[in-house]
Amino acid sequence: MINTKQVLVKRPVGLPTADCWELQEETLPALEDGQLLIEQQYISLDPAMRGWMNDSRSYIPPIPIGDVMRAGSVGKVIDAKGNTSLKVGDFVTGWGGVQTHTITNGEGFYPVNPQWADLPHFIGSLGMPGMTAYFGILKVGEILEGDTVLVSGAAGAVGSVVGQIAKIKGCTVIGIAGGPEKCAYLTDELGFDGAIDYKNENLKGAIKKNCPKGIDVYFDNVGGETLDAALVFLRKNARVVICGAISQYNETELEGPKNYLSLLVNRASMKGMVVLDYASQYSQGMQDIAQWMAEGKLKSKVDIYEGIDQFYPTFLRLFNGDKLGKLILKL
Amino acid sequence: MINTKQVLVKRPVGLPTADCWELQEETLPALEDGQLLIEQQYISLDPAMRGWMNDSRSYIPPIPIGDVMRAGSVGKVIDAKGNTSLKVGDFVTGWGGVQTHTITNGEGFYPVNPQWADLPHFIGSLGMPGMTAYFGILKVGEILEGDTVLVSGAAGAVGSVVGQIAKIKGCTVIGIAGGPEKCAYLTDELGFDGAIDYKNENLKGAIKKNCPKGIDVYFDNVGGETLDAALVFLRKNARVVICGAISQYNETELEGPKNYLSLLVNRASMKGMVVLDYASQYSQGMQDIAQWMAEGKLKSKVDIYEGIDQFYPTFLRLFNGDKLGKLILKL
Repeated sequence: MINTKQVLVKRPVGLPTADCWELQEETLPALEDGQLLIEQQYISLDPAMRGWMNDSRSYIPPIPIGDVMRAGSVGKVIDAKGNTSLKVGDFVTGWGGVQTHTITNGEGFYPVNPQWADLPHFIGSLGMPGMTAYFGILKVGEILEGDTVLVSGAAGAVGSVVGQIAKIKGCTVIGIAGGPEKCAYLTDELGFDGAIDYKNENLKGAIKKNCPKGIDVYFDNVGGETLDAALVFLRKNARVVICGAISQYNETELEGPKNYLSLLVNRASMKGMVVLDYASQYSQGMQDIAQWMAEGKLKSKVDIYEGIDQFYPTFLRLFNGDKLGKLILKL
Repeated sequence: MINTKQVLVKRPVGLPTADCWELQEETLPALEDGQLLIEQQYISLDPAMRGWMNDSRSYIPPIPIGDVMRAGSVGKVIDAKGNTSLKVGDFVTGWGGVQTHTITNGEGFYPVNPQWADLPHFIGSLGMPGMTAYFGILKVGEILEGDTVLVSGAAGAVGSVVGQIAKIKGCTVIGIAGGPEKCAYLTDELGFDGAIDYKNENLKGAIKKNCPKGIDVYFDNVGGETLDAALVFLRKNARVVICGAISQYNETELEGPKNYLSLLVNRASMKGMVVLDYASQYSQGMQDIAQWMAEGKLKSKVDIYEGIDQFYPTFLRLFNGDKLGKLILKL
């Protein structure tokens, strides 16, 4: 059995170049007792992957040079040896990495029920991005009915779920996204109250117009100028959730939020989150999101590209904005 | 009766120049029914005064051009007419402004007991700066025994009380101040565990050395590079209290904290505070601080200059660092 894998061979400076990875083939060894062989079907592409490529202290260790590129995935157990928790035929999700097959003792892999939703959703709205949105907006953002919620990266895997959950909870929701197509998707398909096209509108003017009472919760996936513009319009006791900063991940010199003293004037807070901290509560989050999806209250869009050799051009879509919904590589 | 007052006549750009104020004299009118005449004795000089001079939205309205310069003060009621809550002979604190006398209906003025402490302390550790420190470190910083607490502006009116309260609560306390004299004051007189001289030491290196386990609570009075350096060393679930940003008040272009993504990595929070929000709890804060002062656990230093005509050069000491403890103008 041959495994084809994308191996990290070089740390990037700025936007990763194609030569940061090498496509390698290997013959898989025979399974040892307690091991599973997973045939991977869908690989999750997430902005956080850029951070894992840096050799710096973070919430998880950097990907070692020479290792398979780390990624979430969903696949099927096609072989097992001895006493294993997961069985042949099970569909599972976990840290499968960017490769066609993975051998594991099952640790960190969880079974998924394909009758709940199509498989790709288990690395989308029912996976990490969905959990990030769920715990981020509910536990860190602490939204209340009637709040004005602003979300950046709103057409993405996390932002689109954040906004829809806030709508379900009775908030007024404004999304920031790039281009008229994504903005129409937010208001027409997802039911957002407003959308701001950061590529074609003046951010501050548009936030002021769309959030006339100011912002109670700003959920930030973007950082940079967008964060700075949002800070200007915070209301008293506002909460800013720092979930990511995709505008900054490929910058060698980071831009800090110049308007951070708005936190002082408005007694507001800015708080960082890492979804892994909520692992013990994922089942609650998955249950709620699956139910909202079944009821038609929460829509989940996936944007799927095919082929492990297409990893690099697909990965770039995370940063050039050329995607709509959850970005996935199908194997 | 003649009142001599410093009137705001021009809004500053950057560091205020002397011509932003005009020293004026006026003959006071006769008291109306319910009014008090206060002879002011000590005027509080605080970094926040710089912000009130700007014509921009903040937690209190800007000082109007042509008005007396806003300031806290402590003084004595020397005349009263009709039914007043405060009586002739009472010592009182409130927003007296930078002037020798003030006529008021008593609103916003509170009696102080000169047997508790010398009068200047009622605009220092027993006044706004003390209350800012008390509620900032306890309610916003939420310090726990054993925490490592880093304080900037540590030799100032707020910072020195923050650090001493954190020591009383069982924390390890490191202060950042400018120059060897202030640093010696922190460790030798106030009992801080360590002091960092930002004028003569490399900030990051010194923080790393003094906080080997990282920072649980960073209390920021300074902003700019100091805030950025502190962010690098946050521990998991750290709290950053944004109390002020004296390094930035006279800048026309603000510097944002480049390392704010440390909040994400460390699930940390950065929260702004305004002491006025805690007004209903001031009596508890004053009681605790007065008791700690009486027990010798909390030392309160005042740095007093004299004469209403000396307002401008004294005010500048807030920003050039040439003071030790609470800066006060005696009339």
